[in-house]
Amino acid sequence: MNVGFIGLGQMGAGMAANLLAAGHQVTVYNRTPQKAEPLLAQGAQAAASVAAACRGDAVFTMLADDPAVEAVALGPDGITAHLPAGAVHVSCSTISVALSRRLAAAHAAARQRYVSAPVFGRPDAAAARRLIIVVAGEPAAVAAVTPLLDAIGQRTIVISADPPAANLVKLSGNFLIAAVMESLGEAIALVAKGGVDRHQYVELLTSTLFAAPVYKTYGGILAEGRFSPPGFPAPMGAKDIRLALAAAEELRVPMPLASLLRDRLLALLAQGGDQLDWSAIGALPAKDAGLPGI
Amino acid sequence: MNVGFIGLGQMGAGMAANLLAAGHQVTVYNRTPQKAEPLLAQGAQAAASVAAACRGDAVFTMLADDPAVEAVALGPDGITAHLPAGAVHVSCSTISVALSRRLAAAHAAARQRYVSAPVFGRPDAAAARRLIIVVAGEPAAVAAVTPLLDAIGQRTIVISADPPAANLVKLSGNFLIAAVMESLGEAIALVAKGGVDRHQYVELLTSTLFAAPVYKTYGGILAEGRFSPPGFPAPMGAKDIRLALAAAEELRVPMPLASLLRDRLLALLAQGGDQLDWSAIGALPAKDAGLPGI
Amino acid sequence: MNVGFIGLGQMGAGMAANLLAAGHQVTVYNRTPQKAEPLLAQGAQAAASVAAACRGDAVFTMLADDPAVEAVALGPDGITAHLPAGAVHVSCSTISVALSRRLAAAHAAARQRYVSAPVFGRPDAAAARRLIIVVAGEPAAVAAVTPLLDAIGQRTIVISADPPAANLVKLSGNFLIAAVMESLGEAIALVAKGGVDRHQYVELLTSTLFAAPVYKTYGGILAEGRFSPPGFPAPMGAKDIRLALAAAEELRVPMPLASLLRDRLLALLAQGGDQLDWSAIGALPAKDAGLPGI
Amino acid sequence: MNVGFIGLGQMGAGMAANLLAAGHQVTVYNRTPQKAEPLLAQGAQAAASVAAACRGDAVFTMLADDPAVEAVALGPDGITAHLPAGAVHVSCSTISVALSRRLAAAHAAARQRYVSAPVFGRPDAAAARRLIIVVAGEPAAVAAVTPLLDAIGQRTIVISADPPAANLVKLSGNFLIAAVMESLGEAIALVAKGGVDRHQYVELLTSTLFAAPVYKTYGGILAEGRFSPPGFPAPMGAKDIRLALAAAEELRVPMPLASLLRDRLLALLAQGGDQLDWSAIGALPAKDAGLPGI
Repeated sequence: MNVGFIGLGQMGAGMAANLLAAGHQVTVYNRTPQKAEPLLAQGAQAAASVAAACRGDAVFTMLADDPAVEAVALGPDGITAHLPAGAVHVSCSTISVALSRRLAAAHAAARQRYVSAPVFGRPDAAAARRLIIVVAGEPAAVAAVTPLLDAIGQRTIVISADPPAANLVKLSGNFLIAAVMESLGEAIALVAKGGVDRHQYVELLTSTLFAAPVYKTYGGILAEGRFSPPGFPAPMGAKDIRLALAAAEELRVPMPLASLLRDRLLALLAQGGDQLDWSAIGALPAKDAGLPGI
Repeated sequence: MNVGFIGLGQMGAGMAANLLAAGHQVTVYNRTPQKAEPLLAQGAQAAASVAAACRGDAVFTMLADDPAVEAVALGPDGITAHLPAGAVHVSCSTISVALSRRLAAAHAAARQRYVSAPVFGRPDAAAARRLIIVVAGEPAAVAAVTPLLDAIGQRTIVISADPPAANLVKLSGNFLIAAVMESLGEAIALVAKGGVDRHQYVELLTSTLFAAPVYKTYGGILAEGRFSPPGFPAPMGAKDIRLALAAAEELRVPMPLASLLRDRLLALLAQGGDQLDWSAIGALPAKDAGLPGI
Repeated sequence: MNVGFIGLGQMGAGMAANLLAAGHQVTVYNRTPQKAEPLLAQGAQAAASVAAACRGDAVFTMLADDPAVEAVALGPDGITAHLPAGAVHVSCSTISVALSRRLAAAHAAARQRYVSAPVFGRPDAAAARRLIIVVAGEPAAVAAVTPLLDAIGQRTIVISADPPAANLVKLSGNFLIAAVMESLGEAIALVAKGGVDRHQYVELLTSTLFAAPVYKTYGGILAEGRFSPPGFPAPMGAKDIRLALAAAEELRVPMPLASLLRDRLLALLAQGGDQLDWSAIGALPAKDAGLPGI
Repeated sequence: MNVGFIGLGQMGAGMAANLLAAGHQVTVYNRTPQKAEPLLAQGAQAAASVAAACRGDAVFTMLADDPAVEAVALGPDGITAHLPAGAVHVSCSTISVALSRRLAAAHAAARQRYVSAPVFGRPDAAAARRLIIVVAGEPAAVAAVTPLLDAIGQRTIVISADPPAANLVKLSGNFLIAAVMESLGEAIALVAKGGVDRHQYVELLTSTLFAAPVYKTYGGILAEGRFSPPGFPAPMGAKDIRLALAAAEELRVPMPLASLLRDRLLALLAQGGDQLDWSAIGALPAKDAGLPGI
C-alpha cells in the first residue's frame, strides 16, 4: 500500500522501517528532516510537508503528545485539510481520550476515516516488530489498514468500534505498568531494608508468580538502579498518568493508586528526574525509607 | 523420612498428602481430628497431641495465624517442649517477622533447628504440588529438609540464612499480589465505565504485557466478579497486609500502596466481605465509581 | 466610585448590594437579566451587555469558572475590548492560576489594570459583608480599588504584586477547607463506630482545640448530615481541587492529601452527589466503614 | 484529697504541681527518683514504690506508652495489686483503646474504680493548668475525682461512661492535629513554590478562617521550620497514629488520611527525625517538591 508516516522519533523510525520492510511504499515526514535520512536509505520517499505525506491510502502519526498531534492533524495545513476522502488516518500516539474524540469528529466531517491504534512497547520493540497494537475504529476502516498494522506489530487487538476506547485502554495500560513499578519499589525497599539481596529477590519474583515481561523489565531496572538513559522519559510518563486521570475525571472514576503514581512522578520531576526513565519512581520508596538509592 | 505435620486445613491437607505420596512417614495432628481422616486412609499415622507429632526428624506447621503458631510451637505443651534436639521445625504458615524471630530464638535455646518455609499458592496448587516455597535458615538445616520441601512444591528457593527473611519475602509477595488486584480493579473500573468490555480487556492484558499467572488468576476473578467461595478469605488477606505493614513499621519503610490496600481490606470487611475472597477489594473501585458490582 | 459588576449569582448579588450600600454607583450585568432585578430596586443601573458594564473606574467579575471568566473577559466583545485604559478589572472568581496569568497579560497589553481578588466565604458571608478578600496586583491598582474592596469584605489582605499569587492562595485555602472535611469525616466515623455521640464529639472539638469558624461550620454540617441545599455544590468543590492540583502539577508539588480529596469528590459525584454540598465528602468515611449515612 | 501521682515527665510534673497548688496531698512516684525533687520542694511526699503511691483516694498515671502503663498498673507489684477497694485510678496517658479496656476489667475485678482521663495540651499547657481533659468512666467515679481534674485542666469534658471511649477520642484528636500539619505542609509547599511568603501566608490563614490555636501553633512552627527541641517527639506521634489506626482496624474503619500520616511519620523517622517534633512531617511536602527545607 501507499502510506504516509509522520513522526520519526525513537518509536516512529522503527515502525516506518517495518512498513518499508513489508513492501509498502512509505512517504515520511518529520519536523526535523535529518531524522528521515536512514529511512530514505531504506527506500522511503521524503515529504516536505504534512500535506505531502497525505497522498496515499493511509497516513500514520506517531508523535509525542496532544499538542503535536493536534497541530499536525487539525491545524490549518494539517491532515484533515489534505487527506483524500476515504483515506485513513492511523493515530498511534498516546494521546488523550478527549483529543481522540475530536479527531474522530473532524475526520468524519471531512469524509476521511480515523483509526485509533496506540501501541505498547519500547523503542527496541518497535524496531523488532514486537509492538502490541490496540485498535479501535469503524470495522471497514480497521480492515483496510490491518495489513499495515500487521507489518509493525506482533499482535493487533481490536477493542471497539469507537476510536477513543483504544486510547483509554492504552492509558489504562500505562497506568498498570506504573503500578508495577510502585509495587516493586515498595516491596524492594521493604525486603532490602530487612537484609534481603534485591537482585535475588527480583529473580525469585520474576521466575515464579510474576513471570511476566513487565516485571522482568522493570524488576531488572529497579534492582540495578539503571534509570539512564531513559527508555521512556519521566516527563512522558507523567503526561500519560495525567491523561489517565483526566479520562478518569471525565468518567468520574476515583483511582487512588493512579493518584499515588501522579504524586510519585511529580516528586521525581521536582527532584531532578527530567532525564531519567519513568521507572525511577520505583526508587522513591527506598529513598523515603532512608536507604541509599537503589 | 519420618515427619510430623500439624495443621490440616485446605493448604496443609494437600501438603501432607504430597509428603505421603513421596514415600515419607507422616504423623499428622489437627485440633479437629476429623480433618485427618482422608490422610489416614492414605497411610498417615494419627497423633493425639502436638507432642506426639514431634517424634521424627522434622515437624511441619501450616496454621492460620500468629496466635495459632505461637500456641502450637511455644506453648507449655508445644513443639519447643517436645521436639528432639537436632530435629527441624519447618514453619510454612504466613506469620509475622517478629514471631519468626522469636521462634528462631526459642528453637536455638532448645537446641532444635528452625527453618522458615512459607509457601506461595492457593489450595489447588498445594494439592497439585505446584507450591513455590521460599526458604530461610541455617544451611545444614535447610539441606536436611530439602527432600521434604521438594515433595510439596514445584520449586524451593533459599533466600537467606536468617529465618525471618523468608517471612518478610512471603509478606512482600502477598502485598504484590494484592497490588495487582487494586491496579486491575482501578483499570477495569476506568475502561468499563468508558464502554470497554471487561472480559475482552482482561483477555487483552493477560495475553500480552501481563501474561503472568497472577494476572490471569485475578483478572479472571475480577472480570467475572466470582469472589465466593473464597480461595483465600478476605480476613486472612487483611491479616497478611497488616503483618507486612507491621514489618515495614519496625523497619521504618513507608509503603503508601500497602496502606491503600489495608484501607481497601478494612472497607471490604466493614461492608460485609468476611466470607469473600480477598480479591473482592478489586471490585471496590467500580463501586466507588458508581458502577454496578463487577 | 463608578463601577460595573458582572455575575449576579449567590455570591455576586450580595457583593454588588454591598457596593451599592456603601454609596458607589453600580452598573450590573448578568447573562440571565432577571437576577439583576433586586439590585435595580436598590439603585443599581442595568447594563445590556458586558461592554455596557465597562464604562466606569473599575469592573468586578464574580463568575462560576474559568470558561465563564474567559468568555466575559477575553472574548471578542469582552472586558479587554471595552474597558477604558487605566481602569481596573477586579477578578473575584475562583479561577485557575493559568487563566489569571493570561488575564494579567491581556489587560497589560490593553493598557488596562488587573487586580486578582478572590474571596473566602459562603453566600451568607457575602450578603453580610463578612468576606475575606485575598488581593494581588500592582500596588497602585490595588490602592485604587481598596475602597471598593472594603465595601464588600470584612478584611482585605494584600499578598503579592503578582496577580496569580492571590488565585494560588485562594485555591490553597479551599484545599485546606476540604482537608478539614476529610479529617473530621474520618474522625467522626472512628468515634461514632466506637460508640461516641457525634454531636457531643463535634461540640467537644469545636469548643477547645478546634475553635475555628471552619471546624464549627463543617463539624455542624457533618454531625447533622445536612448536605442539602448546598452552600457550595460538590461540582464546584471538585473544580477547585482540580485547579489546586493543576497549579501543583505546573509547579511540581506532590500533594497526596489533595489527591485524596480529588478522589473523594469524584466518588461523591459518581454516586449521585451533584446536588449536595461539597462537605458531603465528609460522610464517605462513615459509608466506607459500613455505618449508616451521617 | 489524698492522691498518688505516678509518672513525672514533662507533662506529669506540671500536673502534679497543680494538684499540690490546689491544696491536695500528693504522693509522687517516678522510676527515676530525681525527677520528684522539685515537687518535694513544693510539698509532695515521695513514694519509694508504685505500691506506696496507692494509699490515697486516687492515683494518677501519666506515662509514655502502653508498656509503661501496663507494667505500672497490671504488673505483679502494680496498682491493681495495691489500690484500696473503691479508690480510683485516673489514667491520663495516651494509651490504646485495647489497654484501656483491659484496665477497666482489671480494676473492676479488684473492686477498684477506673477513670480514663487523657489530656490535650503540650508541656507548657500542663504547667499553666490549661489542659483539656476528656473523661470517661462510671459517673460516681468521675464525680469523685472531678475536683482533682479541675485542679489540673482548664476544662473537663465527660464523653462516656465507658472508659475506652475517652482514649478513642484522644487518639482521634491527635489524628486531627496531625492532619492539620499535613494539610498546612502541603499548602505551604504549594504557595511557597509559587512565590508567596510563607510567614505572611500563615499569618493570613490564622487570622481569618483558621483562627484556631492548633493552626497558630503548628502554622508558626512550620513557617519557621522550628522542629527542635521537640514539644512532642516524632516517635511519640508515630505511636499515637499507630494506636489510632489500631483502633480503626479493630472497628473496621478505613482512614486513608490517617494512613498517609502514618507513612509521613515513618518517612520522618527513617530519615533521621527521632529527635524532632512530630510537626516536622509538615516539612516533608516541601522536601518532596524539591524546595529547601522549610
